[in-house]
Amino acid sequence: MFSVLPTPFTNAGDVDLDGLCRVVDFFVKAGVNGVTALGVTGEVARLNERERGIVLDTVLGRVNGRIPVVAGTTADGLRTCIEYSRHAQSAGASAVMVSPPRMPKLNSDAVLAHFSALSSAVEVEIVIQDYPPISGFSMEPLLLARIAREVPRARTIKLEDPPTPFKTSRILAQCDGIEVSVLGGLGGVFLLEELLAGASGVMTGFAYPEMLVDVVQLFKSGQVDEAADAFYRYVPLMRFEFQEGLGMSIRKEVLHRRGVLTEATIRPPGTMMGGSDRAALDLLLRWMRDKQRVSWT
Amino acid sequence: MFSVLPTPFTNAGDVDLDGLCRVVDFFVKAGVNGVTALGVTGEVARLNERERGIVLDTVLGRVNGRIPVVAGTTADGLRTCIEYSRHAQSAGASAVMVSPPRMPKLNSDAVLAHFSALSSAVEVEIVIQDYPPISGFSMEPLLLARIAREVPRARTIKLEDPPTPFKTSRILAQCDGIEVSVLGGLGGVFLLEELLAGASGVMTGFAYPEMLVDVVQLFKSGQVDEAADAFYRYVPLMRFEFQEGLGMSIRKEVLHRRGVLTEATIRPPGTMMGGSDRAALDLLLRWMRDKQRVSWT
Amino acid sequence: MFSVLPTPFTNAGDVDLDGLCRVVDFFVKAGVNGVTALGVTGEVARLNERERGIVLDTVLGRVNGRIPVVAGTTADGLRTCIEYSRHAQSAGASAVMVSPPRMPKLNSDAVLAHFSALSSAVEVEIVIQDYPPISGFSMEPLLLARIAREVPRARTIKLEDPPTPFKTSRILAQCDGIEVSVLGGLGGVFLLEELLAGASGVMTGFAYPEMLVDVVQLFKSGQVDEAADAFYRYVPLMRFEFQEGLGMSIRKEVLHRRGVLTEATIRPPGTMMGGSDRAALDLLLRWMRDKQRVSWT
Amino acid sequence: MFSVLPTPFTNAGDVDLDGLCRVVDFFVKAGVNGVTALGVTGEVARLNERERGIVLDTVLGRVNGRIPVVAGTTADGLRTCIEYSRHAQSAGASAVMVSPPRMPKLNSDAVLAHFSALSSAVEVEIVIQDYPPISGFSMEPLLLARIAREVPRARTIKLEDPPTPFKTSRILAQCDGIEVSVLGGLGGVFLLEELLAGASGVMTGFAYPEMLVDVVQLFKSGQVDEAADAFYRYVPLMRFEFQEGLGMSIRKEVLHRRGVLTEATIRPPGTMMGGSDRAALDLLLRWMRDKQRVSWT
Repeated sequence: MFSVLPTPFTNAGDVDLDGLCRVVDFFVKAGVNGVTALGVTGEVARLNERERGIVLDTVLGRVNGRIPVVAGTTADGLRTCIEYSRHAQSAGASAVMVSPPRMPKLNSDAVLAHFSALSSAVEVEIVIQDYPPISGFSMEPLLLARIAREVPRARTIKLEDPPTPFKTSRILAQCDGIEVSVLGGLGGVFLLEELLAGASGVMTGFAYPEMLVDVVQLFKSGQVDEAADAFYRYVPLMRFEFQEGLGMSIRKEVLHRRGVLTEATIRPPGTMMGGSDRAALDLLLRWMRDKQRVSWT
Repeated sequence: MFSVLPTPFTNAGDVDLDGLCRVVDFFVKAGVNGVTALGVTGEVARLNERERGIVLDTVLGRVNGRIPVVAGTTADGLRTCIEYSRHAQSAGASAVMVSPPRMPKLNSDAVLAHFSALSSAVEVEIVIQDYPPISGFSMEPLLLARIAREVPRARTIKLEDPPTPFKTSRILAQCDGIEVSVLGGLGGVFLLEELLAGASGVMTGFAYPEMLVDVVQLFKSGQVDEAADAFYRYVPLMRFEFQEGLGMSIRKEVLHRRGVLTEATIRPPGTMMGGSDRAALDLLLRWMRDKQRVSWT
Repeated sequence: MFSVLPTPFTNAGDVDLDGLCRVVDFFVKAGVNGVTALGVTGEVARLNERERGIVLDTVLGRVNGRIPVVAGTTADGLRTCIEYSRHAQSAGASAVMVSPPRMPKLNSDAVLAHFSALSSAVEVEIVIQDYPPISGFSMEPLLLARIAREVPRARTIKLEDPPTPFKTSRILAQCDGIEVSVLGGLGGVFLLEELLAGASGVMTGFAYPEMLVDVVQLFKSGQVDEAADAFYRYVPLMRFEFQEGLGMSIRKEVLHRRGVLTEATIRPPGTMMGGSDRAALDLLLRWMRDKQRVSWT
Repeated sequence: MFSVLPTPFTNAGDVDLDGLCRVVDFFVKAGVNGVTALGVTGEVARLNERERGIVLDTVLGRVNGRIPVVAGTTADGLRTCIEYSRHAQSAGASAVMVSPPRMPKLNSDAVLAHFSALSSAVEVEIVIQDYPPISGFSMEPLLLARIAREVPRARTIKLEDPPTPFKTSRILAQCDGIEVSVLGGLGGVFLLEELLAGASGVMTGFAYPEMLVDVVQLFKSGQVDEAADAFYRYVPLMRFEFQEGLGMSIRKEVLHRRGVLTEATIRPPGTMMGGSDRAALDLLLRWMRDKQRVSWT
């Protein structure tokens, strides 16, 4: 179970490095198996290159070897992707996470060539992120199996192309005989179903990582009903937090209410939740406390 | 609260008109305020024109005036859309539901002109369906407000463009001074939050319509906490049922298990749920029965 | 060289069957090898099912066996696609032309299954139309090769996914050992380059079919420079006619000026060319007459 | 008439600064009114931030005030966009060119806010780039008019959303009373028609800038037929060069043959033209030389 870290900003919009250290501590304390810096949840698209470097170094420094750190190193150009990935490797990241490069008229052969060239240039594992709204490209199970076959370093897939449980099954069937790991994402909203379909775990930024840890552990120890019960009770919140186009704002608000973030600021043009969204969150957190005995602090 | 009706098929793939009558009875008995025939849930894209006519006539005949019936009449050409809409009107439908026509390079002015011309040709209300994955076009709040202003017959919006609660607020703000009704859709997964944002109700095909009826009634009578509790307990199932690309198959399976449908058949190229999806559904329905005391029969 | 036929409408918007006969005569007289009815150029998306039938019957009747007729039979549902295709076959069409069905989350396996099931249901050839803006799905060379291998009836591809010459080469390389025919489309704007890349011909609705016939004949007889000269001189017009989102309106205007169509009417929501587009067309046709000695009558 | 500059790379893939100076000299000598650095043609998506800075500084240094320089400063985050823009301003750029930020669920209000905030942070003109395949967002004429009204610094539009002549007319109609400048792009393939529709000029990377200069000058001096003749003769090449997904490779090859670039290298994952594309280019350039008396050196 890997948590994707948010990047805290001050009210003025600067990266808040002290805040980032608190974020790291919170997730480590929750018992996650690893953390991912510079993912979509980290608003990496709205950091400049200097900030990317500082955020990664801060996370690595604060984690200090306690758990593995994955670094997002997606770039539109292969050369830049390699450059980011090599820096992450030198700095101590255990793996890099990479989406297909954004480019009009991209095709499967070019995606395979991209991961293949990247693999030749680094020595760490490559997590393939399959999130079409960000990359603009849908990777079919056949392509993911081709990559797994030809690029052994790239056999972990962060799957975020719904329906994810169904696609998990199709990927595993295509990869027959090759060991691949599928990790769910998308806020964890289908975690249980992904595990039932054969996923190895989850890598997402949901603001209650302790629940994700529990669900994965219960499931892996064979306590499926207990995993299911633990999971379903959080689904209303997971679904609410992971609203398309609004997810980062809600997630930071929840982490703010939990005391992890001083500010819930996101960078523009990210969309901020509105008044009725806040009322809805109040209602939901109250229900979780009163009916599900889930405290948010 | 309007339910969008599925179209039952026999194992051989023919429209099952007896089954359709049972479907109508089930939803009427659940207490819904109206039903919608020939929507996405009705697999309208996979019916030919003769079948469209028969399905609508069967639904109208079986409902027999007990509640209003909305008819989906979307078409790529204006002329065909008008033809479908006039037929629906003559046959007794209370309203027609229409998406923007699918066409490369469509723009807001053409969408406005489409609804305006349709409005001149019919005398029933027009429900605007805002579901970009089907129409290929995103209608912004400003456009919906222009339509509401210039086409008084088209002031009900079936909103299926996430984040729907947020967009509900934006539409209502833009329509300031004009009475529009926003209805949630998308399987009802954000119903409570849509109501909090000002939505008037919901029009969707969720297989437990009695819960949707309850939630709307509790909410409208001011019992917000009760509405919330009733709603959240179903969210795990709603979310599961409304999986992108797999929704129709799951929904029909649930209605089959509830005894409403004899067969859960959908027409190709619709995707059928796989083995692990069935296991996940078993687990979820068991939890609903044991922990939430929700029976599926 | 196949011409895709426009569907003439009266000013009132009705299908003009006499006009359609004149259209057929014009294209037959131009020496084309075949014609295609009910394609995108035929505004098939804006015909109802009755009109589809009448248009196809009229074309077949007027052609009367002089040249082959291809019928567009794309539908969102497999069952409807088969129904259209069988009707076309019974009515005398030599082949059917089919795009992937429009459906959110469509994938390669479903597309293969669609063509495979269609193939089992008919006895005529299947032309696969690869035009992503209409189908919403990009077929990669690998998929087209899989279809060619598994569905022998579907080895002709109407390729309209740019860059078409480049993709022609890639398809032919993937199909190594299987005889496939690639036909260019997209208004013929890249016809020469497609032939150089190995295309077998072209299927499009360009309003000067006699030129397309010439270019293909010259090229096939080895007179490449002559083919090129004949082609390049028309490129300014081909490019102008095939403007995205405006093509049908311009094409019908040119055919109207050439005396083939009584009216240049297209059906809404199709976009009509504006005043400056007409001025631009005047200028271009004048240049073709004065400098290239191409008359439009 | 502004030329968008390519960024030359060595065979090893490094930025070739000497080559870039030769590129600048070539375009200045061709008589263009200005140049644009860091555009799509400059493969800006495949440069890292350090390289962006060096390229811009090199162009500004070599131009040395002879003509205005526009700098592409698009970024997914507002803050980074402002940072790039301020740097460009300090370095001496006359204007910045900016696309809407890439983000799922972007809307018109957020785009307006983006340009408005950028405008408050800089003192140079803002050229709005309307190129949906890159930005993922279609800006309708109404939005462009809102921006023109509310952000006076952003009244120049590089229009690359076909059909561009038609859209030019619609934008100018919407902007009634506000002075906006529409510049064509898209390789110049519709330059003449854009001018006829009211465009002020063109900003593109076509490898024969001298022709673009001629056409604009002839047109502006009222010699429309002469402009048209000059233009149409180049259309076969313009169309060929601007092939979707292959344009950069062809353009660099042409500039290489013209002696401007030492190497035609583009950076991966950019697609390189294939063998039949080269044969097609040979044929076309030979025709231009023999029949149109256009030399490529």
